[in-house]
Amino acid sequence: MTTYSVAVIPGDGIGNEVVPEAQRVLEAVARSGGFSFDWTHYDWSCERFARTGAMMPADGLAQIRDKDAIFLGAVGFPGVPDHVSLWGLLIPIRRGFHQYVNLRPVKLLAGVESPLKGREPGSIDFYVVRENNEGEYSSIGGRLYDGLDDELVMQQSIFTRRGCDRVMRYAFELAKGRKKHVTSATKSNGISHTMPYWDERFAAISTEYPGFTTDQFHIDILTAHFVRNPDWFDVIVASNLFGDILSDLGPAVVGSIGIAPGGNINPEKEYPSMFEPVHGSAPDIAGKGVANPIGQIWSGAMMLRHLGEEAAAAAIESAIEEVLARRDSLTRDLGGKAGTRELTDAIIGALPSSLARAPAA
Amino acid sequence: MTTYSVAVIPGDGIGNEVVPEAQRVLEAVARSGGFSFDWTHYDWSCERFARTGAMMPADGLAQIRDKDAIFLGAVGFPGVPDHVSLWGLLIPIRRGFHQYVNLRPVKLLAGVESPLKGREPGSIDFYVVRENNEGEYSSIGGRLYDGLDDELVMQQSIFTRRGCDRVMRYAFELAKGRKKHVTSATKSNGISHTMPYWDERFAAISTEYPGFTTDQFHIDILTAHFVRNPDWFDVIVASNLFGDILSDLGPAVVGSIGIAPGGNINPEKEYPSMFEPVHGSAPDIAGKGVANPIGQIWSGAMMLRHLGEEAAAAAIESAIEEVLARRDSLTRDLGGKAGTRELTDAIIGALPSSLARAPAA
Ligand SMILES: CC(C)[C@H](C(=O)O)[C@@H](O)C(=O)O
Ligand SMILES: CC(C)[C@H](C(=O)O)[C@@H](O)C(=O)O
Repeated sequence: MTTYSVAVIPGDGIGNEVVPEAQRVLEAVARSGGFSFDWTHYDWSCERFARTGAMMPADGLAQIRDKDAIFLGAVGFPGVPDHVSLWGLLIPIRRGFHQYVNLRPVKLLAGVESPLKGREPGSIDFYVVRENNEGEYSSIGGRLYDGLDDELVMQQSIFTRRGCDRVMRYAFELAKGRKKHVTSATKSNGISHTMPYWDERFAAISTEYPGFTTDQFHIDILTAHFVRNPDWFDVIVASNLFGDILSDLGPAVVGSIGIAPGGNINPEKEYPSMFEPVHGSAPDIAGKGVANPIGQIWSGAMMLRHLGEEAAAAAIESAIEEVLARRDSLTRDLGGKAGTRELTDAIIGALPSSLARAPAA
Repeated sequence: MTTYSVAVIPGDGIGNEVVPEAQRVLEAVARSGGFSFDWTHYDWSCERFARTGAMMPADGLAQIRDKDAIFLGAVGFPGVPDHVSLWGLLIPIRRGFHQYVNLRPVKLLAGVESPLKGREPGSIDFYVVRENNEGEYSSIGGRLYDGLDDELVMQQSIFTRRGCDRVMRYAFELAKGRKKHVTSATKSNGISHTMPYWDERFAAISTEYPGFTTDQFHIDILTAHFVRNPDWFDVIVASNLFGDILSDLGPAVVGSIGIAPGGNINPEKEYPSMFEPVHGSAPDIAGKGVANPIGQIWSGAMMLRHLGEEAAAAAIESAIEEVLARRDSLTRDLGGKAGTRELTDAIIGALPSSLARAPAA
């Protein structure tokens, strides 16, 4: 029997509530799927930062280097600026483990209210593939004339050929099993070095995929199309910053921002990949047992797919879709009355019987 | 009688159709408003670029330096890359004339179909104040290892204290006559030099405006709020890139991207300001007499307001709102059957009688 060893980092706030619930779902599919998990917990968090001055130990990456995957809740804590959690945890893991793809599905599901008029479930269904290691998220820059009227700050964006090509190829590979349509987010009319280069690499990589259709939009009008024409897209590839924007706007457009999953992926599997929901640690509702666990559970499904357990991943996703459509076990944020645990139980109950049995509480 | 001398640059495509129509409306309000226009035409355009190799003559800025305003249609032409029109015309004018504010109203109007569910006319009403001179739109950067596998490109963003402070003060001054609420668009958790500096200046400028409420959102979640909570905003101040994104997404959210106006403003009036609609040159429908002139006419109203002709500006805006709500003279893009000229005539007809009479064709 295959055993996956997974680093579990619940993080802060509701992360501590939704991660154990998602683990119950994962255990349920594992049992009937013929594989198992070996979970190791880590208390890395803003809460830990407040206590010890560091989000994770100095040898943190080495501690989890050999895991098959990382299952992250959410980090964020009142009083700890979020650049601390980013630069002290997320970015070191994303970069240290070459998780150069940030993948987020955007799908309009039955039972989830989209803010857009007249869109049918299934009519919006695409992936945002975000470059996750370089680009606009750089620590290079500085300040001149500190404190004076002439003060100015500079910041470098850096795009490498290797960095562009690999994320673009990932997008094309993903589109291969879909509509073979890849859209590039650019801004080469305004950003005059990095973005024309991005376009150049997109054109080059496109030639490796004959039979695919491609297009590109400047980021300004692309965000407008997310609202006006979200049905145009299949796979969108974008730089770190543009992908960050599109992978929040996309879920907002389909009404799923509270339940959307995400993966930080090292496609070569030379390093562990990390799966985390889009939502944050929601300190305002933490500890009340009302947090929606779907984003975490769905992230678990993405983790299974990455590990090669496609049937188990698909089973979880169908169960989520079924429970959402049924609408009888939803949490408050979705207009229901259920708690975190009841919604999880409903999802476990909706798993196909040949794959899953609910584990004892 | 005051005479305003205005540089008219119709540009390309439908710019050549909507600019003369907007001039008719402006002439109509001028007549009863007790002022007049002295128009000078310039053929600066991508079409000129294709013919002569330059968007405008070398001494272009000097030619229009002493005008009271610039009235621009749209630039863009199949085959001419849009960085040419930007760096050959828009950016030299925006920077050369210190038009450091790009101002775009976002307003849900009766008669205009928003893609969002359940929003009433008037319930979305805010301004995007975009920094228009510096920031991410910089020409500084370059390439290393050209053509090799290790190839990389770099791009500098530059934010000055003067540049931040002046656009932020403009936003607060604008909010003074409104709800006194200013929102800052940031990304200080990911972009580690320029954006924390932007936050620092926003905090500093905020202290100059006691009694105002302020908030700030990272650009990713801010775009999500445009879709989920567009009624939260009054005045939003943003960097060049973020403002570019928000001022396309905003009009898309209220369904007005085809009719939204914009101003490139030098608030001190030391240099001429430039007014142009958000829409492009639309080569596909150019020459057919079907283009919607409202964006251009509304930009004309913004120009009048900048020139100090508030009553005339408000008269045009009311006339636009009335004709939109009536829905009997709309162009195809708004679901009607009227041509450019008929829609313009309807707006002229809707001007308050004490201000306007339609000029002979
Ligand atoms: C044409 C383009 C470069 C321009 C910009 O990004 O400034 C446009 O999008 C705008 O908003 O005026
Ligand atoms: C927390 C924040 C810095 C982070 C990012 O911008 O990468 C988040 O928005 C995300 O998308 O994972």
